[in-house]
Order: sequence, then structure tokens, then C-alpha cells
Amino acid sequence: MKPRQTPKPLESAASTIGPKLAAGSASLNPGLRRVVEYHWGWRDPEGNRIEARKGKALRPALGLLSAEAVGEERDLALSGAAAVEMLHDYTLLHDDVMDRDEERRGRPTAWVVFGTGAAICAGDALAALAQRVLLEDASPRREGALRALCKANEDVIAGQMLDASFEGRVDVSIGAYTRMASLKTGALLRCSASIGAILADGPEASIAALADFGTHLGLAFQAVDDWLGIWGDREQVGKPIGSDLRQRKASLPILHAAASSSAAGEEIRCLLRSDDPLSEEDVERATDCVADTGAGEVTVAVSKVELERAIGALDRAWLANHPRSQLSELAEFAIRRAY
Amino acid sequence: MKPRQTPKPLESAASTIGPKLAAGSASLNPGLRRVVEYHWGWRDPEGNRIEARKGKALRPALGLLSAEAVGEERDLALSGAAAVEMLHDYTLLHDDVMDRDEERRGRPTAWVVFGTGAAICAGDALAALAQRVLLEDASPRREGALRALCKANEDVIAGQMLDASFEGRVDVSIGAYTRMASLKTGALLRCSASIGAILADGPEASIAALADFGTHLGLAFQAVDDWLGIWGDREQVGKPIGSDLRQRKASLPILHAAASSSAAGEEIRCLLRSDDPLSEEDVERATDCVADTGAGEVTVAVSKVELERAIGALDRAWLANHPRSQLSELAEFAIRRAY
Repeated sequence: MKPRQTPKPLESAASTIGPKLAAGSASLNPGLRRVVEYHWGWRDPEGNRIEARKGKALRPALGLLSAEAVGEERDLALSGAAAVEMLHDYTLLHDDVMDRDEERRGRPTAWVVFGTGAAICAGDALAALAQRVLLEDASPRREGALRALCKANEDVIAGQMLDASFEGRVDVSIGAYTRMASLKTGALLRCSASIGAILADGPEASIAALADFGTHLGLAFQAVDDWLGIWGDREQVGKPIGSDLRQRKASLPILHAAASSSAAGEEIRCLLRSDDPLSEEDVERATDCVADTGAGEVTVAVSKVELERAIGALDRAWLANHPRSQLSELAEFAIRRAY
Repeated sequence: MKPRQTPKPLESAASTIGPKLAAGSASLNPGLRRVVEYHWGWRDPEGNRIEARKGKALRPALGLLSAEAVGEERDLALSGAAAVEMLHDYTLLHDDVMDRDEERRGRPTAWVVFGTGAAICAGDALAALAQRVLLEDASPRREGALRALCKANEDVIAGQMLDASFEGRVDVSIGAYTRMASLKTGALLRCSASIGAILADGPEASIAALADFGTHLGLAFQAVDDWLGIWGDREQVGKPIGSDLRQRKASLPILHAAASSSAAGEEIRCLLRSDDPLSEEDVERATDCVADTGAGEVTVAVSKVELERAIGALDRAWLANHPRSQLSELAEFAIRRAY
């Protein structure tokens, strides 16, 4: 299935929070600002302004919609929407350093262009900025929003650490994988999908439903990401095809394949256990093996189940009708981008 | 001048905040906890508990005293004292990665033992933990404390970025250096010396005086650190002697030497401009050159002037007598550790 037309909330979110992001980066020292605005796709490596790419801004879109979902103005969610995007970008900047990833969104990563130190600093600065944006918000519930952001930050870090510890292992259970993914990816979507409702002082039950929606959306999203990490083309993923296999990542399809009793499963287990660098042919061969075990279909099925759970969560408490439909639509769009 | 007996507040601070730190690290995932507790000197690289070294705990000591200085119980400052120590340790973990420093306090740095990714994650986790500790505090002024901590974090990052941009440069003005040092080192001591007073809801003028005390103490402290970076022995500094010259850091004595019109000054300028790695003889020779310009005496004088300013700031607003004396004593001790 090809991606349908981009939902409106996704299109408008990036421009809605743009001024907040711009004010944030303008408050940084020039060296940090350059790294941050390069990472955002606003500047080239030399620091010249370029036409900003249309980012997905999924997290800000969720944040803005979550205020509307409890019947309030989306403007009340503005700081929250900017904060989750800043927190997301901080994790990307640090992840790229940790994983030594050299490409993101089809461009060299920040550490490749500016060095490891500058990329770490820029990430740290964005994490602090996310916090400040909320501290400066006028909402009497800003502290609650800050708590949610802090929790998301802690969970993402724990998830990243777990993910790294899984690399090259064949014995990671699907349960352990799911706990990792709900931390690494679910936690920030959970925060994004509820932070606007918190700032708008929505009912507790509605906030909880929105948060659960976010967690399951995160699990669905991670399954899609893992699928793309093997079968996505460069245009969809922005990095070389087969990179998850090359890195021996314990991704969902790879774990499913490694759990298979078939000959293909045994080949994948051997590959994960070995330390030798993989040639292009090895990666192609491994991709075929993973497909042979049916792990691709299982991964797609997991993403669909989690998507249903996410949408189901939205029915568990009172939410305004139109924003609720928009949240469902957004979730489907985010998940069906691949197949 | 040899260090006198360690002041009591410094000795007791580490044990006072110990349980808060322990509860914090116990809440982390096991992988992160291991890195953090290794960094604190509580565990060896294999994860076995070792007898904790007596840390300096200067920042927690300042935090605790600042509550007493506005006439309140030091217990009110407990979260603040733990938070500034966690923030400090986060900056150290990241700095060591950025500077590729392989030794701290006479032990291999965390990234050397656990890898770059784990050290970055552990730093991120401590930054988040510092924030959470304050969010969980019962004080009605916890948000003010959080603002102070966030500001300190932003300033430290900006200072670190500036410091890195100075490396190898001979044209950094003393004014630019001082602004950098007041961010990199002054900001967190400013926060430490006032956070307890904020949490204890002290008078604004007293909080401001304590904050200024911290800034100037930071400048004095940095001057001493820079002095030790050239003339300190391994036991005092915990890393190889002459490392600042080897790294061509724009430290205070090196900048003063590079500004000298003497032949020794010219040698230092040449050394800073070149890219060649320095032999042990080069470093020794450069050390002599820096000394020749009188930069050592200037650096000592700067630290004394800033120390006086720090102590002077304590007289600018009402503070309780005994804690004020203890703050002065602590400042003198921290500065006179070297000479």
C-alpha cells in the first residue's frame, strides 16, 4: 500500500512550532546554533540557510492534537509540541554518535560534519532547551508536562542502553524486545500524545487514554522502522539498505528469523554470532533468509495489532470527536508509510 | 601553601547526599547504574563494590550551606545538593568523551571502560535524574530551583562549546576567556551556592549574593585548575602532568604567556599554532617558557582576586553568620588546594 496524502495536522505542525524552534536555537551560542540548525535541515554544513525540508513533525502534531482532543485550543500545547521535538532531536544527535551512523535523512550526520564533541553538546543543549521551553510556559500544569517529559527522557535513555546491549545477541526474547521498544520509541510518543492535554488541564482519564495511544503507536512505529531497516529503500529510510543486518541489530524481524527452526533461521543465528564484517552479497543473502522465515509478515502483523491497540485506546475515555479522528488518521498514516 | 585541614561541611556533604545519589542510581537500568556508580568511584570496572573514595563534594557542600545561610535547615537543600552533583557528573562524563580524556581522579574514564555510547547515555541519565530529584522535592520553590539548574546546564554547555572553539588559538582575549570560564565553571558553582537558599525560600537579595559568590568562586577555581593543568603533579590533578600544554588548551596561564612580548611568549605562540604532537621534552620546554613570562604568578593573582570578590559578595546581603564563615572557609580551602 502506498502512502496516502499527508494528513493536514502533520503538514501544519512543522510550521506551527517553527517559530518556537527558531527562538530556541537563536538563544544558543553561535557554534551550537549552527549544529542544531544543520541537524534540523535549516542550514548547510557551511552555515548557509537552505530551504528547510518538510519534516514529518509527527511528535509535535500529536502534541497539538492532544490539546484539541480534550476540547481546548491547540495553542495551549505549543510549548509541549516544541519540547517533544527538541527532545527527539537530542536523542537523534546522541544516537548517531553512539551508533556511528554517518547518514540521516539522506545527509551526513551532525558528528560527521562538526565532530563528536559538537554533536554531543548540541544534543545536550536541545535537552536543556526542551526543559526551558516548558518552564517558561504560562500553564498552571507546566510542571506536570515537565514531569512527563522527564519520564520520557529517562525511558528513552534506558531503551537506548538496552537496545545497544541486544546487539549481536540471538537470545533476546520478543518480550524483552517489546519492553525495550516501548521505552526507546514508545515513551516519547506517549509523552507527545498527552503533553498537550496535560498543559490544557484535560481530565486525567483522557490524558491516560492519549498516553496509551502514544505507547502503542510507538510499538507499531518501531515495528515498521524495523521492517524498513531490512526492506526499505534508501529513499524511504535515508540510509543504506540492509543496515540493520550489517550492524547485527536485534530488530523485530531479525529476532523472529533467529527464533525460526528452519535452515534460514540457523543461517541468521550464525550470522548474528559471528564478528566478521558482511559483504554486500552476505547482506543480500541474509535478507533472503529473514524473508524465508516469514519474519517480514510477522513484523507487519505486529505493527497492525499495535496500531489497532493505539486506536482502541482512544475510545477508552472522553475525547472530542474531530481531533480523535485526526489522531487515528495520523497513526494510520505513520504506520502505513511503508507497505 | 599546603592545604589545611578539610573543612567540616566538605567532609559531611558527601555522606549527607550519599543516600539520595544511591536511590537515584538504583532507579536506573542495570547497565546505566554500573557506569554511573563506576564514575562515582563506588564500583570497579567489573561492577564489584569498592570502598568509595572520599570525593570533594564541593557543590553539594555549597548547596547545603546556602540553605543554612538564609537561616533554614540544611535538609531543605538535600535535593538541590544532590541535583548539582548529578549535573556536575553528567558534564564530566560527556566532557571526557568530547576531550578523549582517558583518566580522571587517577582511574580510566567511563568511556574507556564501558565505551563511548554507554558514557554518553550515563551522562544523559544523570542530567535527567538531576531534574527528577528536584521535580520530586516538596518545596513550593522547587520550580525556581529547577530554573536555576536548567540555566546552569545551558551555561555549562555553552561554556564547553566555547572552550573547545578556543583550542589551539593564540588570539583569545582574557575577556573572552573570562566569559567562557564564568559559563563553564562559574555557572554550576553559582547554582550550587544558591540552590539551597532557593529551595528554603530565602530572601531574593540573599539568593543573589550567594549566586554571585558562586560565580566568582568558579572563576577563582578555574584559575587554580588552569594553574594545576601546567604545574600540578599527578597526585593533585589525577591526570598526566602538562596535559593542557599537550592539548594546546587556551588556559589562563597559556593565554597570558601567549600575550607576552618576550621570546618565551613567541615560543608559546609558535607551539599553539603548530599541529605537531609534542614530545615530553617539548612539554617541559613549553612549561619553562610559560613560567618565564610570569603567567604563573598572574594566574595565582587572578584566583586570589576572584576569591576576594566571592567572599565580598557574601557581605552584600543578610546571611546567617556561622554558615557565612563556613562558606568563606570553604572557598579559601577550595582555592588554596594548590599553592
